[in-house]
Amino acid sequence: MVDLSMLVQGIRSGEMRALARACRLIDERDARAFELLKLLFQHDGHAYVIGVTGTPGAGKSTLVDGLIRLYRDQGKRVAVLAIDPTSPYSGGAILGDRIRMQQHFTDEGVFIRSIATRGHLGGLSRSTGDVLHVLHAAKFDVVILETVGVGQDELEVTQLADTTLVVMAPGLGDDIQAIKAGILEVADVFAVNKADRVGADATAQDLLQMLSLRRVPKGVTKMQGHTAVSTLRKGPEAEAGEWVPPILKTVAHRQEGLAELVDAFAKHRAFLTTTEAGRAIREQRRIAEFRAILYQALIDEVDARFAERVSEKLKDVVDGRADPYSSAEALVRGVIDDQAET
Amino acid sequence: MVDLSMLVQGIRSGEMRALARACRLIDERDARAFELLKLLFQHDGHAYVIGVTGTPGAGKSTLVDGLIRLYRDQGKRVAVLAIDPTSPYSGGAILGDRIRMQQHFTDEGVFIRSIATRGHLGGLSRSTGDVLHVLHAAKFDVVILETVGVGQDELEVTQLADTTLVVMAPGLGDDIQAIKAGILEVADVFAVNKADRVGADATAQDLLQMLSLRRVPKGVTKMQGHTAVSTLRKGPEAEAGEWVPPILKTVAHRQEGLAELVDAFAKHRAFLTTTEAGRAIREQRRIAEFRAILYQALIDEVDARFAERVSEKLKDVVDGRADPYSSAEALVRGVIDDQAET
Repeated sequence: MVDLSMLVQGIRSGEMRALARACRLIDERDARAFELLKLLFQHDGHAYVIGVTGTPGAGKSTLVDGLIRLYRDQGKRVAVLAIDPTSPYSGGAILGDRIRMQQHFTDEGVFIRSIATRGHLGGLSRSTGDVLHVLHAAKFDVVILETVGVGQDELEVTQLADTTLVVMAPGLGDDIQAIKAGILEVADVFAVNKADRVGADATAQDLLQMLSLRRVPKGVTKMQGHTAVSTLRKGPEAEAGEWVPPILKTVAHRQEGLAELVDAFAKHRAFLTTTEAGRAIREQRRIAEFRAILYQALIDEVDARFAERVSEKLKDVVDGRADPYSSAEALVRGVIDDQAET
Repeated sequence: MVDLSMLVQGIRSGEMRALARACRLIDERDARAFELLKLLFQHDGHAYVIGVTGTPGAGKSTLVDGLIRLYRDQGKRVAVLAIDPTSPYSGGAILGDRIRMQQHFTDEGVFIRSIATRGHLGGLSRSTGDVLHVLHAAKFDVVILETVGVGQDELEVTQLADTTLVVMAPGLGDDIQAIKAGILEVADVFAVNKADRVGADATAQDLLQMLSLRRVPKGVTKMQGHTAVSTLRKGPEAEAGEWVPPILKTVAHRQEGLAELVDAFAKHRAFLTTTEAGRAIREQRRIAEFRAILYQALIDEVDARFAERVSEKLKDVVDGRADPYSSAEALVRGVIDDQAET
């Protein structure tokens, strides 16, 4: 039996055991997790959430490690959620990376947890979102959401983070163009890591070029757009009402460029909180989160209360006695309250 | 006004305009799409669905192109759905790849369509699944589901495909281990493409090694497991009751190894349809699909019928007057029919 008010108290005082227990309730989709989150929400908004994603091999973990160090030096409490598409089987491979982080395990100001997605379709972002609220309540100053491996979850992470950092590195194959395409719009800050390697400038230039193309306004030729953006890109221009993602070079294993990165994060945070455009972005995220919570609650309620009916229909579909569309329709019509309609 | 029975007839005769129209209804989440899918389902099961995913730069599009050619030579009708995480903005970059496919545009036996995910959270797999049912009804023999770019949608594709091909290539960065980890369990067949390049054997060996590790049964030492699997891996052993993913080398731009690939697909299809293990996999997929359709129908119904109530609650949440968890709970309780409970 979990005493929720005790658990809230433990979380508020930042007790690691209370945090782990809350994460477990959320992972297991325990009904009490929902009650806990209702209680915790009044303490929301403390943490600054940074999403870190990028191409495999770009050195994300080393960079995250460096960021932890830097924020710790500033006296800030840091939590890291590693979003991990690994299943129990292949888990070992990626877990190796995490071992590097164990140097922080004795540090009371650092909380690290892996969130396995294990082939989940959707659902990841919801439970990660729930864990974020726990970390807010536990008064972490910075939360780093790091995608591990394939990059399955990049878009989800963007939706949850205040600021999204995309990490690239020179020399990761000739098809980096394809990788960039999906990433361009999710990034608030770019890091070209391993910048001491050959090709770092070319990677940065490439990136700049692609970002310029994206920002060409309608009716303006490419060349004009490019010029305009190159000028703008000298720094984040929050006051222009639009955020222009800066491209920074880093050598994470030597801690080079990380202070500049943290500085860019702070500027982006200021953009989010002090400008109209930033406020609109935050509002959109709150709307998206509410919808996600609502839909999940709806599904959970139907699964819990109409389990028998669902499994009957399921049997019909699997045995080929009914098509899934008609069966779903009949079920939905049966469980929605016609009297309640507005 | 769409006449659904006319549309069904057009789809059944494989008219491209009818197909395009059906895809559009599904894309736009038009309510008539649901009715159409109910009508089409009786014609389901014709097509064999192959998912193609893998590391960027491995030459997926060239390989898919070669597969189309090969199946066309066998007189089979082929559809390709390119799952594309690209947004309208960066669309240009990846669209270039698609141009290569235009050589098939005049071929009546080939249907190619991009499905843009545009930052959708979830939802992709449902609409792609719906389009698949249209292609079944249109009597395509082979449907290729190709992920483009970042590989955001690999797991979704696996859920929808009968057989999943994972394409790799030598020399795509030193961190290929991280990429593989997530991919291992989704693959039914592996292709090491660009096999004329240096390092192809090493990539294949690497892959074999990782697959062996995965298959070590509990209580068996690693070495034993490895030996056992290396022996097994000489070919797909469907009769053993378990599918062992073969690793094939290809040089797609010279059409080398593709016939062997198609042969492996046929063996995997036989495994799915003639063995107990295969039947269990297909049943699991039907269950997952029914749940996905059910949940989407539930969400659509609530959004359509309780739009006003949802937006009221949304306003409370955005303005900070209520927490999203309590608001979602209140909404869900209000719209579920208490009388209907089993």
